[in-house]
Amino acid sequence: MDGDRSEEHHHHDIEIEGGHSFERKISGILDDGSVGFRQPLLARNRKNTTSQIAIVGANSCPIESLDYEIFENDFFKQDWRSRKKIEILQYTFLKWALAFLIGLATGVVGFLNNLAVENIAGFKLLLTGNLMLKEKYFQAFFAFAGCNLILATAAASLCAYIAPAAAGSGIPEVKAYLNGIDAYSILAPSTLFVKIFGSIFGVAAGFVVGKEGPMVHTGACIANLLGQGGSRKYRLTWKWLRFFKNDRDRRDLITCGAAAGVAAAFRAPVGGVLFALEEAASWWRNSLLWRTFFTTAVVAVVLRSLIELCRSGRCGLFGKGGLIMFDVNSGTVLYSTPDLLAVVFLGVVGGVLGSLYNYLVDKVLRTYSLINERGPRFKIMLVMAVSVLSSCCAFGLPWLTQCTPCPIGIGEGKCPSVGRSSIYKSFQCPPNHYNDLSSLLLNTNDDAIRNLFTSRTENEFHISTLAIFFVAVYFLGIITYGIAIPSGLFIPVILAGASYGRLVGRLLGPLSQLDVGLFSLLGAASFLGGTMRMTVSLCVILLELTNNLLMLPLVMLVLLISKTVADCFNKGVYDQIVTMKGLPYMEDHAEPYMRNLVAKDVVSGSLISFSRVEKVGVIWQALKMTRHNGFPVIDEPPFTEDYELCGIALRSHLLVLLQGKRFSKQRTTYGSQILRSCKARDFGKAGLGKGLKIEDLDLSDEEMEMYVDLHPITNTSPYTVLETLSLAKAAILFRQLGLRHLCVVPKTPGRPPIVGILTRHDFMPEHVLGLYPHIDPLK
Amino acid sequence: MDGDRSEEHHHHDIEIEGGHSFERKISGILDDGSVGFRQPLLARNRKNTTSQIAIVGANSCPIESLDYEIFENDFFKQDWRSRKKIEILQYTFLKWALAFLIGLATGVVGFLNNLAVENIAGFKLLLTGNLMLKEKYFQAFFAFAGCNLILATAAASLCAYIAPAAAGSGIPEVKAYLNGIDAYSILAPSTLFVKIFGSIFGVAAGFVVGKEGPMVHTGACIANLLGQGGSRKYRLTWKWLRFFKNDRDRRDLITCGAAAGVAAAFRAPVGGVLFALEEAASWWRNSLLWRTFFTTAVVAVVLRSLIELCRSGRCGLFGKGGLIMFDVNSGTVLYSTPDLLAVVFLGVVGGVLGSLYNYLVDKVLRTYSLINERGPRFKIMLVMAVSVLSSCCAFGLPWLTQCTPCPIGIGEGKCPSVGRSSIYKSFQCPPNHYNDLSSLLLNTNDDAIRNLFTSRTENEFHISTLAIFFVAVYFLGIITYGIAIPSGLFIPVILAGASYGRLVGRLLGPLSQLDVGLFSLLGAASFLGGTMRMTVSLCVILLELTNNLLMLPLVMLVLLISKTVADCFNKGVYDQIVTMKGLPYMEDHAEPYMRNLVAKDVVSGSLISFSRVEKVGVIWQALKMTRHNGFPVIDEPPFTEDYELCGIALRSHLLVLLQGKRFSKQRTTYGSQILRSCKARDFGKAGLGKGLKIEDLDLSDEEMEMYVDLHPITNTSPYTVLETLSLAKAAILFRQLGLRHLCVVPKTPGRPPIVGILTRHDFMPEHVLGLYPHIDPLK
Repeated sequence: MDGDRSEEHHHHDIEIEGGHSFERKISGILDDGSVGFRQPLLARNRKNTTSQIAIVGANSCPIESLDYEIFENDFFKQDWRSRKKIEILQYTFLKWALAFLIGLATGVVGFLNNLAVENIAGFKLLLTGNLMLKEKYFQAFFAFAGCNLILATAAASLCAYIAPAAAGSGIPEVKAYLNGIDAYSILAPSTLFVKIFGSIFGVAAGFVVGKEGPMVHTGACIANLLGQGGSRKYRLTWKWLRFFKNDRDRRDLITCGAAAGVAAAFRAPVGGVLFALEEAASWWRNSLLWRTFFTTAVVAVVLRSLIELCRSGRCGLFGKGGLIMFDVNSGTVLYSTPDLLAVVFLGVVGGVLGSLYNYLVDKVLRTYSLINERGPRFKIMLVMAVSVLSSCCAFGLPWLTQCTPCPIGIGEGKCPSVGRSSIYKSFQCPPNHYNDLSSLLLNTNDDAIRNLFTSRTENEFHISTLAIFFVAVYFLGIITYGIAIPSGLFIPVILAGASYGRLVGRLLGPLSQLDVGLFSLLGAASFLGGTMRMTVSLCVILLELTNNLLMLPLVMLVLLISKTVADCFNKGVYDQIVTMKGLPYMEDHAEPYMRNLVAKDVVSGSLISFSRVEKVGVIWQALKMTRHNGFPVIDEPPFTEDYELCGIALRSHLLVLLQGKRFSKQRTTYGSQILRSCKARDFGKAGLGKGLKIEDLDLSDEEMEMYVDLHPITNTSPYTVLETLSLAKAAILFRQLGLRHLCVVPKTPGRPPIVGILTRHDFMPEHVLGLYPHIDPLK
Repeated sequence: MDGDRSEEHHHHDIEIEGGHSFERKISGILDDGSVGFRQPLLARNRKNTTSQIAIVGANSCPIESLDYEIFENDFFKQDWRSRKKIEILQYTFLKWALAFLIGLATGVVGFLNNLAVENIAGFKLLLTGNLMLKEKYFQAFFAFAGCNLILATAAASLCAYIAPAAAGSGIPEVKAYLNGIDAYSILAPSTLFVKIFGSIFGVAAGFVVGKEGPMVHTGACIANLLGQGGSRKYRLTWKWLRFFKNDRDRRDLITCGAAAGVAAAFRAPVGGVLFALEEAASWWRNSLLWRTFFTTAVVAVVLRSLIELCRSGRCGLFGKGGLIMFDVNSGTVLYSTPDLLAVVFLGVVGGVLGSLYNYLVDKVLRTYSLINERGPRFKIMLVMAVSVLSSCCAFGLPWLTQCTPCPIGIGEGKCPSVGRSSIYKSFQCPPNHYNDLSSLLLNTNDDAIRNLFTSRTENEFHISTLAIFFVAVYFLGIITYGIAIPSGLFIPVILAGASYGRLVGRLLGPLSQLDVGLFSLLGAASFLGGTMRMTVSLCVILLELTNNLLMLPLVMLVLLISKTVADCFNKGVYDQIVTMKGLPYMEDHAEPYMRNLVAKDVVSGSLISFSRVEKVGVIWQALKMTRHNGFPVIDEPPFTEDYELCGIALRSHLLVLLQGKRFSKQRTTYGSQILRSCKARDFGKAGLGKGLKIEDLDLSDEEMEMYVDLHPITNTSPYTVLETLSLAKAAILFRQLGLRHLCVVPKTPGRPPIVGILTRHDFMPEHVLGLYPHIDPLK
């Protein structure tokens, strides 16, 4: 029996990380009798049905998983033990310094973004307004639409040719990254560049898009760039930054970056922290909360100082309008039962409309992806078409409404006004009249929201105006998301929600005593709750936006109602986009059907493992033939008494080890020698796409026949589960600890020491339900 | 060799959960040759050096760990599979209904608490004030001190005789519970009763204590009571509540309760959620965030409605003063560089003073515990002594300050005022003069804080007044915490911090343009940051208290600085108390030295395991002789081919199974029979102290010789770690998944299928460093 078992161990299984399309059978490539490949067992011959390609931005892109576990190999331990006090201080100092820099950079970018948008859009609107005052209507339209088209084309070209990953909101990608899914393009410097400028051009081009999602993505990109310590190409790396060359510390930075992005977009520091906590991050701890808070505090201070600088008028057309802070001054908010009923009604309908929004966005995205797939030119043409449509709506719809006489008692020159953010815009109207719809449509989105939230002027918006505007932004928002420009979802949803709320407020006016401005705010809350399904962070963001804590209970009520209603229909918009893009997101709970399966039921592919002292050729072959990222290392006789699991070695570390060429002619352990001659920092994680590739190795035939001791790079403390552990529990373990590879070990003795490796893809519903199609997903 | 191994397996190891004082060796009790006890191996003979007794409230009390893992035994699976859609709906409905009820009950209790305090303290203060106006100073003092003494004695008697666990803040206990440490008394109904009334009497008695900590504890007790579904004694249980008879769902409820407590105490719903997240909970998920938010929203609405009811004056002396909401109306907050420097100075000194506060509280607590240990009478005497001292300070210190002439232009009857919350109190002063210190000391704590936060009257507090008040409340707060009454720490810290801040504001007046009311708020923030070390939740609570978002950046800055400074000296006050009470709290990070150890290094005690089909007598013996709560169950031949780990059985389930007396005369598997004849709900977790005890079993000698199949109650999916996993990783696994037992399995084949069980106590630094005294705790 003993002989039997050792026989089994001399074979090497083949495992494919998370099953990609690799299907060829590898068998008996090497002539060495003791090392070969065995036909995998039937149970392990299954193919993982989820793909390892996802759509990032608008292009498909290979993805990789991240390792949030501490990889405890000998190098790590050596480094850890030899770390001096001064180095720990350096690390702590750097953590805070980087948090500060992220806050500073994100704050500055957020401010410049606003400054640029306000100036570009302001110039455009002034030009149009002046032509309108001269009654040159066609010229005005062409000036308006032309400016929009140029800006839109610029944004689309950047996006299509330089960084396709910068298209869209970016929040789903950041969310996926923090969940452990990486793709080179998500946080690359080119993405950052396009995200900043594309967002400026896109927002200035008058699309119904926001800058909030892009700001979150921008913050994450800045954090990633700072964490990588500049570019290795330009020798701008910094020695200290080696502490951050791992997924764990980098993820912390990116969480701070995402929070800083929200803080910069909304000027909502506490809201930013909560957004990172509630929506973005999958893995959280209290010390990170504190660091995130520090970052957003820096953002708040930076923004405040910069705005202070602009107060003297040195920032062109950038006025108070920059960086939304809406004043909803409704005094003391008192409400009675009919008011509460009105609010409940608002919340329910808002929830329904919000989930319909998600549904339509999903449909439109699927349609657009057919167009976008055809290439950059089609992407740009789609953007141009939407731009022309948006311009026509913005310029055409105000003609539908009647002109309103200016209210009496208003100051000189205020109605019709010349400035751009006023609500008394002349448009085509005769003197002393104004067009209320044009003040919503022919304006920046921020100013339109501010106008909708005003409470001072009870009746300035006609019911028909609000209805037309609501329908227009609702559908424009839906068809705009998904075109190849950076496009946030917050602002379109707030715009539609605010006009919906104000409309309801006007309609229910006789029944409710609440202010229409407050109704507008509650409408925005109901739409946000219905689409994004966040509660606490949205609540705090809205409070910080409007600076009025007294309406807190009403906002909470509306958010809870609309989220509950919308949850009956579909998932939140970001989750929906994550699913649609094919990102293998791990939920924080296990699916019900997983309780009926055990870990070994889903282990897929075949398994390749190495001996502790392995032939170079075998390793090279395995690395070449598969795309696995983790390989089990087995302790074998004569080094140990029996076959034992030594641990897991990563592909990237194997490549570095092979490149170092510290081989031995004999099959002996010489790990301590390797340990002395290499340094932990050699194995630090490079920026994605910058790591070594198998093609970079140059090994002679002689070297192929030599041996290498894998012990120094093997993580000897991998998390393991027994093969009979229920899949639900394995999934929770995997997710809670942020793992990349989870070893499945046999329960009964007398078998190989490892059954297989579970990766993220093995837990995906498509994979599990593909293997067991007859299982009831709800049981 | 095979024979050898089976020999080993027929022996039963003895393991002691988390090592208590049980030391007797059990050996060869049973005459059946195949079942006996073996001398434990040397490595496992170690005694766990941490105790299983902790100080809860002021008395020591046995503690137990909680199980947040889903216990997947056959009964659970049967129940899960047979669960109908309607039952899932029931469960969902109940979850939300309970959240609603917790919010409602906590809101009402919070309101009544305030109402009672305001009326009792108001009566006392009016009585004293009227006697003072008549210049009957001695009578006034005796009335004042007498009222205080009576109230204090009442609070202390309740605490000492009915529920010692109700003493102190309660936040450390709730924090420990949510970390997985249970003691019967922590959340018992009697604790709830004493907490509510003790807190009312204690606050009304003029102690420098708050009601915030007690409110958190009250909320948690209410949640626990509702989750248990009333009392089984009075047949008030509800069938539906069986879904909540487990630690997991109960913990969720208690998290909601803790959040509701903060929300009710401060009228800060968002702050409550964040407090639960940042300080209280150890285990969090997004759906819980939403439920907690709902609970605090209910609290906010309930409080608002009840205060509305009181507006017409039907609530006695309860005025606007009830339920703190301070208005710091500093208009637009503009600040320059000297202002920022002043704020930084404030934060640094506040951090130092805050950490000194923690240090002194710790010393005082240790001294008091020597007195409190002697019995209830000593507890009461201590409370009386502190009460007399507080009364003397409150009444005596105002004589030290000079009378101030009333400001000119103030309305008739306002200076000196007759009401109780005004700042123009006459005290001993001649007409048209007032004593500013008496308005701080002879007042409720809430009103004193409100007076300190006012910005309207720049100079009404003398520097000497502020200095005397600061010193008085700083030290009174320290000596009051630890006496046997429910006593919150928030209010003493805010009082000391606000007076410190105002003092600094007055002293730095020539240098800084900031309002003294704002300085006062920032001073409170610095003290809170320095003692409690929370950031985000304190920030939001302060914002919700003061209803002014514009000072957010300054508050954030101060909190960050003071926390950073204070962290250099010691731990947060709640962590300190948790440690001092001996509660085995699991931190969310592993200690550095744990990386140098592996799991099997700390497995302590000896191990008792059962066969799958075990003799009743063996089980009974094991349950009687040890206090273990988890026993490994081993699959043995002839039921399986080899020795395998079947899973873990809990003591409570074993007791229920033995009581059911479903035994078999033969050593055969008949699990499915047991499964049919019992129901999952029989194994539901009873309220602590209500479960079966070994003494409740009545087994005949004949029954002792029979067999019982343990499979139906065995959790066949326990989490396991290999014995060579680093202890740091095992600790993270244990903590992140909220485990109670973690099985350590052997790495090399040919050994028993389980090496030992790790429990919470095995990870405690005292235990680990006790085993390895030569290890460097920092490496």
